[in-house]
Amino acid sequence: MPNATSLLKGGLRAVNLGAERFCDDLRSQGAPCVHVDWAPPAKGSPELIRALASLDSAEVDAANEAALARFYEASPHLVDFALAKDVIPGMRKNLVLHAGPPIAWEDMCGPMRGAIMGVLILEGFASTPEEAAEVAASGAIDFEPCHHHDTVGPMAGVISSSMVVQVFENKTHGNRAYCPVPEGMGGKLLRYGAYDPECIDNLRWMASEFREVMHAALSTSDGIDVRSLQFQALHMGDEGHNRNKAGTSMLLRALFPLLLKSGMPLDKVERCVDFINGNDGYFLSISMPSSKVCLDVARDVEGSSMVTAMCRNGVEFGIRVSGLGDEWFTGPAQWVDGLYFPGFGDDDANLDMGDSCITETAGIGGFALSGAPAIVQLVGGTAAEGVEISKRMYEITIGENTNYSQPVLNFRGSPTGIDIRKVVETGIMPVITTGSVHKKAGVGQIGAGLTKPPMECFEKALKAFARRYGRE
Amino acid sequence: MPNATSLLKGGLRAVNLGAERFCDDLRSQGAPCVHVDWAPPAKGSPELIRALASLDSAEVDAANEAALARFYEASPHLVDFALAKDVIPGMRKNLVLHAGPPIAWEDMCGPMRGAIMGVLILEGFASTPEEAAEVAASGAIDFEPCHHHDTVGPMAGVISSSMVVQVFENKTHGNRAYCPVPEGMGGKLLRYGAYDPECIDNLRWMASEFREVMHAALSTSDGIDVRSLQFQALHMGDEGHNRNKAGTSMLLRALFPLLLKSGMPLDKVERCVDFINGNDGYFLSISMPSSKVCLDVARDVEGSSMVTAMCRNGVEFGIRVSGLGDEWFTGPAQWVDGLYFPGFGDDDANLDMGDSCITETAGIGGFALSGAPAIVQLVGGTAAEGVEISKRMYEITIGENTNYSQPVLNFRGSPTGIDIRKVVETGIMPVITTGSVHKKAGVGQIGAGLTKPPMECFEKALKAFARRYGRE
Repeated sequence: MPNATSLLKGGLRAVNLGAERFCDDLRSQGAPCVHVDWAPPAKGSPELIRALASLDSAEVDAANEAALARFYEASPHLVDFALAKDVIPGMRKNLVLHAGPPIAWEDMCGPMRGAIMGVLILEGFASTPEEAAEVAASGAIDFEPCHHHDTVGPMAGVISSSMVVQVFENKTHGNRAYCPVPEGMGGKLLRYGAYDPECIDNLRWMASEFREVMHAALSTSDGIDVRSLQFQALHMGDEGHNRNKAGTSMLLRALFPLLLKSGMPLDKVERCVDFINGNDGYFLSISMPSSKVCLDVARDVEGSSMVTAMCRNGVEFGIRVSGLGDEWFTGPAQWVDGLYFPGFGDDDANLDMGDSCITETAGIGGFALSGAPAIVQLVGGTAAEGVEISKRMYEITIGENTNYSQPVLNFRGSPTGIDIRKVVETGIMPVITTGSVHKKAGVGQIGAGLTKPPMECFEKALKAFARRYGRE
Repeated sequence: MPNATSLLKGGLRAVNLGAERFCDDLRSQGAPCVHVDWAPPAKGSPELIRALASLDSAEVDAANEAALARFYEASPHLVDFALAKDVIPGMRKNLVLHAGPPIAWEDMCGPMRGAIMGVLILEGFASTPEEAAEVAASGAIDFEPCHHHDTVGPMAGVISSSMVVQVFENKTHGNRAYCPVPEGMGGKLLRYGAYDPECIDNLRWMASEFREVMHAALSTSDGIDVRSLQFQALHMGDEGHNRNKAGTSMLLRALFPLLLKSGMPLDKVERCVDFINGNDGYFLSISMPSSKVCLDVARDVEGSSMVTAMCRNGVEFGIRVSGLGDEWFTGPAQWVDGLYFPGFGDDDANLDMGDSCITETAGIGGFALSGAPAIVQLVGGTAAEGVEISKRMYEITIGENTNYSQPVLNFRGSPTGIDIRKVVETGIMPVITTGSVHKKAGVGQIGAGLTKPPMECFEKALKAFARRYGRE
């Protein structure tokens, strides 16, 4: 048998599968070698391969197209600012919503517990953090996921009845979604688990003056077309999850004329403008519910393997699948891989947390990373790496959303609609851009990076999907 | 002598200089070939090579670094909106400014003549376009370049004493620059040569209500730091010449709090906000004077071969060089190479026109094209081509401006400070992103594309530079 050198003299070129270092060896001898990043489907697991093989591909594809078509048809609008108790379905005094899949008080992480203590003080259930912790543990309070109430919340995602939320309406199908008003970029923030008086005072101001002004402004219009703002923002350096400066700017441009028509006193308007203007990340709390209100109409499509929600509660990561109803498929939340702000390290970090990866579920965030080099740089990568990540996401998605296009990829539509079959088959995980939060309540954001779901979510979902839809 | 095929069997690889098709031939036979885009320096011209050789490279380099350092130190701020006659040095009733190097009425192109007829009606010198043309030809009116009055104007760049201009101050060195308020995106626009009553009425509104509101708003502050806005905009899909959506958005965010404090009636404020908000290209009239006010302090540096202005009057293209005082080095204006809007073609187009390429002179526009894929697409190219253009500009520039960085190039500073030596030596021309204007007055923009100066400007400037600074 000829050796590599003699083969190459004859003009042969190599294609390498498996471990890349065989390819490196050939290259070091000056031989052209193309490495193919190949792994056996579904890690070679007989059970998962059987599950995949049991499905009628054409049928599932058609169901997925139908689900994605509903998503595309949705028309998300910001229509109001209101108190949670006045608008969120099922909201009540002793109910507290939280990010991620269901979790009991005993199992929650530090920042989520801290935020809950904060809202129990806000709602008058307690006057000290210690009292609040007792009330939380007493069984007097119900804890339910935001997602069970048409709502999404960033980080701890904690919402109580007296808090102000932004109201989104899908003008095509009529459904609504809700999201807290973002508190700002610095200081003591509920979403990171703060419960200080400063944090509570801020929540009170947001629920009163800020809500009144914004309600008056929105009342002068039929709502703000959020998809149009997101479309533009994706051409302006945003990816809609960790970078939202352009979206926030476009939102302000849409709001100014409404604020001028609101009839509210100018000093109040000025405080509200300064509040939004001072937070380049404001638009995350627009992109999240906008994603949610569109994804919700892709739920419950018989036979569809499209993911309709991904979220994490700081302990577990959960996903929902269109054809599998309201069931959560969960696995352990992962670490955030990126950079810490000075003074922080691995020992400080909580596991990945929040409903914010609803953006990736909707084909933006990490899926549109090609257009946001500033975020890739923030987490320690290069612009080219961001482009590669976006490209890889096409391998696990159903369609390309031309409403959300990627300039660097010559305006190719963003990869949209995660297919659990493709994730399991390829082993490629959805990439999520996110912030890293301190594990102690109230310390705040300590870094930023990339993270992913645990494969377990997708494997569990696929098995359930095969049980329900697979042929014998 | 062995033929190519036998050489390649032996493992030889080719490097090709000159005509690329020799390389193509080899490649078609499966042979690796690297093409080097090489041409003889200064096109092989003995006179130009002598001129280059006569210069002390180290001395010119040092002078260029000094000129560029002054440019970097400048701190451009938008400080006021005022009538031209109240602020532009030397402005008077019978003076009309225009874009580009000096040109007589008889030699002007259609759109520039049309705009001049417009302002002669505005100023009361005539009541009909025919009368205006007679007055213009009579010698009663002086025509001078904007650049001779610390001013820049887009397209026709026509400015008369009763028009409103934006006032920019370089807070480091104290010099000022001026630019007309942009009239909007559609309709009858002076800058494209319109002289209709609609156009004149708009100029009157801009000089009265709009100026009063904006003056009141700016009076509540020390001015708006324009470099900070441009820095951000370059990370948000703008290149600062043809794409200015992000800059316009950031400007509005900066203006809104000032407008709320202005004390002006809200209906007036609302009209002014709508006026800016409706024109995503507004910021061009910020990026141009901002570039001008910074470049002006790099003028008159003894021994510097840095270009301090590039501009065109629709007939001629002109450049100024730091070490060569106020002299213009001119050549014929070029065509714009790109795409036309539907219904227009080559026969409709005027030659390249306007002072707007002051942005490229300052290292943005075509020099920062890597960050504005939307513009490359608009002119018929790909995102990758935009990146290549930006990279090529490093070969003809003095420094890299870290204040204006390019995300796609991993935030490398934009190529800044065109060196006439490098342009002549390499034959690489500055790339300018621009709009294409109809050759008939008042029709308007008919397309967009890329253009470049004529090499003649740089060759004339280099010869003059060598006469002044060359060793025998």
